[in-house]
Formats: sequence, C-alpha cells, structure tokens
Amino acid sequence: MAAAKEPGPPDGGLGMSETDRVKAFSDGVFAIVITLLVLELRVPEYHHGDLLAALGHEGPSYLAFVVSFAYIGVIWLNHHALLRLIRGTTLALNWINLGILFGAVIIPFPTAVLASAFAEGDTADQRAAVALYAASAALMSAPWLLFFGYLHRHPALLASGVDVAHARAQRARPITGLLLYGLAGLLGWFVDPVLGLVGIIVMIAYHALTSEGLRAGPLGRLVGGRRR
Amino acid sequence: MAAAKEPGPPDGGLGMSETDRVKAFSDGVFAIVITLLVLELRVPEYHHGDLLAALGHEGPSYLAFVVSFAYIGVIWLNHHALLRLIRGTTLALNWINLGILFGAVIIPFPTAVLASAFAEGDTADQRAAVALYAASAALMSAPWLLFFGYLHRHPALLASGVDVAHARAQRARPITGLLLYGLAGLLGWFVDPVLGLVGIIVMIAYHALTSEGLRAGPLGRLVGGRRR
Amino acid sequence: MAAAKEPGPPDGGLGMSETDRVKAFSDGVFAIVITLLVLELRVPEYHHGDLLAALGHEGPSYLAFVVSFAYIGVIWLNHHALLRLIRGTTLALNWINLGILFGAVIIPFPTAVLASAFAEGDTADQRAAVALYAASAALMSAPWLLFFGYLHRHPALLASGVDVAHARAQRARPITGLLLYGLAGLLGWFVDPVLGLVGIIVMIAYHALTSEGLRAGPLGRLVGGRRR
Amino acid sequence: MAAAKEPGPPDGGLGMSETDRVKAFSDGVFAIVITLLVLELRVPEYHHGDLLAALGHEGPSYLAFVVSFAYIGVIWLNHHALLRLIRGTTLALNWINLGILFGAVIIPFPTAVLASAFAEGDTADQRAAVALYAASAALMSAPWLLFFGYLHRHPALLASGVDVAHARAQRARPITGLLLYGLAGLLGWFVDPVLGLVGIIVMIAYHALTSEGLRAGPLGRLVGGRRR
Repeated sequence: MAAAKEPGPPDGGLGMSETDRVKAFSDGVFAIVITLLVLELRVPEYHHGDLLAALGHEGPSYLAFVVSFAYIGVIWLNHHALLRLIRGTTLALNWINLGILFGAVIIPFPTAVLASAFAEGDTADQRAAVALYAASAALMSAPWLLFFGYLHRHPALLASGVDVAHARAQRARPITGLLLYGLAGLLGWFVDPVLGLVGIIVMIAYHALTSEGLRAGPLGRLVGGRRR
Repeated sequence: MAAAKEPGPPDGGLGMSETDRVKAFSDGVFAIVITLLVLELRVPEYHHGDLLAALGHEGPSYLAFVVSFAYIGVIWLNHHALLRLIRGTTLALNWINLGILFGAVIIPFPTAVLASAFAEGDTADQRAAVALYAASAALMSAPWLLFFGYLHRHPALLASGVDVAHARAQRARPITGLLLYGLAGLLGWFVDPVLGLVGIIVMIAYHALTSEGLRAGPLGRLVGGRRR
Repeated sequence: MAAAKEPGPPDGGLGMSETDRVKAFSDGVFAIVITLLVLELRVPEYHHGDLLAALGHEGPSYLAFVVSFAYIGVIWLNHHALLRLIRGTTLALNWINLGILFGAVIIPFPTAVLASAFAEGDTADQRAAVALYAASAALMSAPWLLFFGYLHRHPALLASGVDVAHARAQRARPITGLLLYGLAGLLGWFVDPVLGLVGIIVMIAYHALTSEGLRAGPLGRLVGGRRR
Repeated sequence: MAAAKEPGPPDGGLGMSETDRVKAFSDGVFAIVITLLVLELRVPEYHHGDLLAALGHEGPSYLAFVVSFAYIGVIWLNHHALLRLIRGTTLALNWINLGILFGAVIIPFPTAVLASAFAEGDTADQRAAVALYAASAALMSAPWLLFFGYLHRHPALLASGVDVAHARAQRARPITGLLLYGLAGLLGWFVDPVLGLVGIIVMIAYHALTSEGLRAGPLGRLVGGRRR
C-alpha cells in the first residue's frame, strides 16, 4: 500500500515489492531461533544436595548454547547487512530468503546433536555429530550464494549507492563458507572430531568478523561510506 | 493514531483501520510456526557409537520437517500477496485473518502425526494420518475463500490499482484447495496412503507456483504490473 | 527518536512516548501465545493400527485448543482496539500493558489444566480446573480496568477524536468480566463444573462481540465514525 | 534504504545505521522469552481427585514464573528507554545489544533451576541455585555497562536532546547491578539461600523503579523533559 503512495524508481519489470514484511518475518524467525536455544538448557535430574555437580556435568550443553547463540547472532548481523543492499524484493528473492531462514532455523538441531555426542557419545558419535553440524553449516551457505548471484543478475534491485562490483565481491564469503565448512566436516569425520569442531568455531568467527560484508576492505569502505 | 493524522480516502462506513498490526501479528505467527517445527527434530535415543544409525532412522521426521517448512513458507508468501490487495482492514477481515492463521498454526500437529505414522505406524495409521493432514489442509482453504468473498462484496477495501475482477479470480485457488485436498484425503483413506501423500505434495507445489496470485495469467500480469 | 523530530501536541508533563514498541512487543507476545497452544497438541501414544482411536481420545484437548485460540484472538482484537484509543504511552501505561500481557501469557496453563481434568480427572478435578480457569480470566480483567481508569484520569493520552466519556464507558466491560468470570468460577466450584465451563464460554463470546468497544452503541458509533 | 533517502546528520565515520531492525529483533526476543516462561508451568501429575492439591504443591514454580515475568518486563522497559537514547546503531552496538539479549534469553534457565531447588532440593541445592541466579543477573549487567561506555565515547550516536552527562550518569545502574547481584549471590551461597533470594528480589525492584533511567532525579527530569 505504501508502494502505491510512494512509487519510487522503476523496477525493470521485476515485480518488485517492499522489504518491510520480509524484514519483519525474518527478524521474527531469528528472534525465535535464538530464544528457543534456551529450551535445550534443562534442569538436570539430581539427588538431594547434588544440584551443583549435576549442573557442572551439563558443561557441553552450555558451551553449545553459547556457540549457537553467537552463531545465530552472526547470521542476523549478516542478514541485517544483506537486506541493506536491496531496495525491494521479488518472489524469487523471497524464496531465497526462505532458504536462508531454513538454514538458521535448523541450527538448534545439529547443535543439540553435537552437545549430546560430546556429553554422552563415543568418538564415532562425535564424528557423526561434527560432520552433521559442518554439513548443515555448509548447506546453509548455498542460499546466500544464490542471493548474491541473483542481485548480480538484477542490479535494478540494488539500493542506491550499492554497486554491482560490491554485490559480486560478497559472493566470496558464502563460497568460502561452503568450502571450509565442508573441509571442517571432512576433517571431523576422517581425522578427528575435535579438529573438525575447531574448524567450525574458526568459521563462525570468520563470518562474525566479516558480518558487515567487505566494508573493511578498500571497496567496502568506499561503498559503506556512501551507503549509510 | 497514524489514521487520525492521515485520513486517506473514505472507507464507505466499513469502520476500516490500518493493516499494520494485522501484518505484524500475522508475521509473528508465521515466524513462530515455521520455527517451532524444529522442536519436532529431537536428538534420538542411541547407544554408544550408534548416533549415525539413530539419526538415519529419523528420516521421515526430516522429510516432514522440510515439507512443512516449505508449506508454511508458501502460506506466508500467499498471505504476503493477500494483504497487498487491501488498503485497510475491518473487524470481519480480522476474524477471517485469525481463521487463516488458525490454519497455519495447526500445521505442526498433523505434520507430527504424519511423521509418526510413517515412522512407526502400520497402513491403517498411515491412512488416518494422511486423511487428517488432507482434512486440515482442505479446511485451511475455507477462510481464504471467505477473505476473497468479503473483498468482492466490499470493493472499498481494495488497494488502489487492484480491481474487483482480480479479487474474484483469486477465489479459484482456495476452491481448488478445498476440492483437491479433500480428494487427496479420500484417496489416502480409501485407496492408498502413499497416493494421498503424493496428492498433498502436489497441492503444496500448486500453491507455491501460484503464490503471487494470478499474476502470471493475462489478468494478473495487467494488475501486477500496475499494482507494484 | 521520531518523537524528537515530530514533537506533536504537548503531553501535559506525562513523559509520554510513542506506542510503536509497545505495539510490536504486544503483537509479538500475542503471536507467540496463540502459536504455543499448538505445542499442547501432541501425537498420542498408540499401538499399531490404533492411531485414529488414539486421536479421537484426545477430543477434549482439541476443543480446549480451539477455545483458547479463539480466546486469545478475542484478546488481541480487544487490545488492537485499546491501543487505538491512545496517542502515546507512559511508564505507568507500559506496566499496565505488561499486566494485560501477563493475563494473555498464562492462558495456555489453565487451558491445559482444564483439558487434563476433563480428559483424565474426576468431578473434583474438574471443579478445581474450572475454578482456576475462571479465576485466571477474572484476574485478567483487572489490568484492563486499570488501563481505562488511567486514561480517564489522563485525557491528554487519548488519540484525537476519542473523548473522555468513551474511555469511561469502556470500563463497564472489564468490570463485567471480573464479576461474571468470578460467578462462573463459583458456579463451577459449588454447583457443577460443566455449568461453570458454559459460563466461561459465554463470557468469551461476550468479549468477542464487544471487541471493538462500545462502537455498536450510539456513543460508540459517534466516536468510531470519527476516529477511523 | 530509508537511510539512503533521509540522510540525517553526519555520523562521524561510525558506519551508523537505523535502529529499526534492532528494535524489531529485540522486541521479538523479549516477547518470546517472556512468553516461553509459561512452558515451565506444566499440568502436574495427579491421582483422581488430587488435582487441586497437586497444583498447590507447584507453588514455588508459580512464584518463580511471576518474578521472572516481572523481571523480563523490567528489562524490556529498561531496553525501551535505552534505545531511545540513540539515533542510530553500529556494528559494535549491535554486538553489545546481542549481549544484552543473551542476558535476557537465559533467564528462564536459572529461574527453572531456582524453582526446582526450592520445590525439591535441600539447602545445598538452594545455595547453588541462588548463586547461579545471582551470577547470571550480575553478568547480565556487563553489556549494559559496555553500552553506556560506548555511548560516552561516541556522543555522535546520542539522539538529539540527550547529553553526554546523562549517558555517563546511567552507568551507575549496571555497576550497582554488578556489585549488588554479586553480593546477593555471596550471601545466598555463604550465609543463607533465602537471604540471597530476598537480595535478588530487591534488585529487580530497584531496576523496576529506575527503568526510565535517572529521569526522576534533577538531571533526568531536565533531559527527560526535553527528550520526549
């Protein structure tokens, strides 16, 4: 309806619509996923006087909770920066965004598997859990790649001040994610689960540090300075 | 309050109000439903070293999760397009919208029943589960039909650029849903549960492909081109 | 921040701020409560071939789900109309609003108790469950009464076109709720639980029918016609 | 995108962006956490006719629910006032805000531990639970301290009408929280768990009473009067 009142620049026949509801829906999904993680933190079974020891035994669950909270926080920051690149959305972009949200929504599951394997499983279980987590994270990169590819092919969607070269440059990050999460999974499966886990944490840190896109680089600084 | 400041066109005595809170509430409900699905994915019970096999055993749950995620995504896209048709809401439309949300909110339940029946039940259980799913999906079409019917009777609610013929044409889709989901349920109950399941998946794909309304058709292209 | 840019009319020293975040937070809470209800619908335990019978046995749960969904829908519609009365909020109103949300948030609990008592308990359990539900619903009316009382004492908060007499007239509804839910609870406890349950359902219908305030009455029509 | 259209005052090279999505995401998280608390309220196991007694036995859970609801309400009110201080956000502020949300998200867990310890545990369990709750609450103060410190170092982020002295004055509150929650935890651990619990409730009341910042004081009145 707002679109009817403020027409804005022509959309090149894309059938572009506002991003308001996409943002509201996405923020809702991220807010819920990051909050649902706490449901994994349960009061452990304990005998009288043993609560403290029982809580201590749940250490891996707490670590998994903190890592997943940070991870979803990182994805939200990345998504925040992603939607600032565009001035409108299309049916195709809405589907790609659903793919991005799918990746975020499933995080609690491989996280719970990971926590369970390190708390109660043996090495074979830990291999499987690390491989599952890495595979999920690698697949999660795919819709981001599609998003940047779509933007590259439809520059009319870019917000004013964002140029095509910037959108193209961003593709490096999901490609890195796809490859290195895959590598971490292979390491965890074939070499050592703890090594794979370290690889996963390094990758989350990488995405945290680059969450604003390539803003820190010379191109990013140029675009970022103008865009905001 | 905004309504008080920007009166807008007369509402023909409908007692029309803004759609902002309806959108926010609906987006919240969709975001929560699509995210709650992940709660169905639980770490399975497993013996040391058997995690991978235990995860493999949960295959039907994962499939049900993916189908339901896509289904709710499709409903959200349809709802997104639906609310772009109107420039305001009324008490009656708010009730009809609650009916639409009711349909979305219950999805996780027949989905869980379906996953359970195909993972653990026999053919009789699968018939019951497919029939329940199809009946839920068919009933879910009813409030959409009411919505389009209401719009048809109250053209003053249509957003500028959307005409009555367009609103009438949209009624074909929930009618199709009501009939074909019903048919899928009957097939699943009387003939074969797997056949019914295939019918359900075909219907979800149908709603996915027409989520932007009849925009792809000649009438839709006309309206869509002007509306956005 | 918007307030800093668009000062609006003076607030009479109330320390008034925008209602945007109150709406967003409240809509979020309502959306989550209405969606969480579905978590009460669980796949029942069943033997091979007994799924349909097991589902049938859960009838009271489904009825409780539908009633609670409608109830929270009614509260949302009432809240929607409530916040349209004001042009800003204060710290005191935010606290009263938290009280209103508290009433909405606890609904799933007495609902689950009610469903359990009618599915598995005896008459004594049903009395207790009906009394608990009615007491919750009666207490839920209290913050609405505070809200209308506060508006009456601070007419500077009223949106333009809403007059003091209208705000005073609305107080009749939470008072009715407080008294009649209390009566339903007493009937359910001392006379018959089913009678109390009928009283509760009648009250929900009453709030549904008056969700837009006294708009249908002569005063309401006057105000409603001007306000929207 | 709005930023591109309405440039606003220069941001001093901070890479500032709008606060809209931060507000929406934060409101979503608060709404979910405050609503998830109700999941802790479960229908107790009971024999025929014993529902009322079984409900009565759950007293500590209900008290924990009410205290936690009020606590998260207080944090939301504080957060509401916090974001009114700024006119834009940065990557660093977004991370600090995630830290604030982390503190809110974990509340249900120490709350559940507390309720369990007082319902089923012995004094040693209660000591552990009170110490855990107090430690969580004390740590929760840390990101608020970072927020005010960051604002103090980057006055360009302050909303118009908010001065540096005001931002500096607010730091007193998280420092008080850090120290006094720590003290309550030590009292609960070394002296008496009930004493620690009282200390926690006093602190929640303190944050409730000062939720609008130092507005009640002479400085706050000055700033508050101008700011809104």
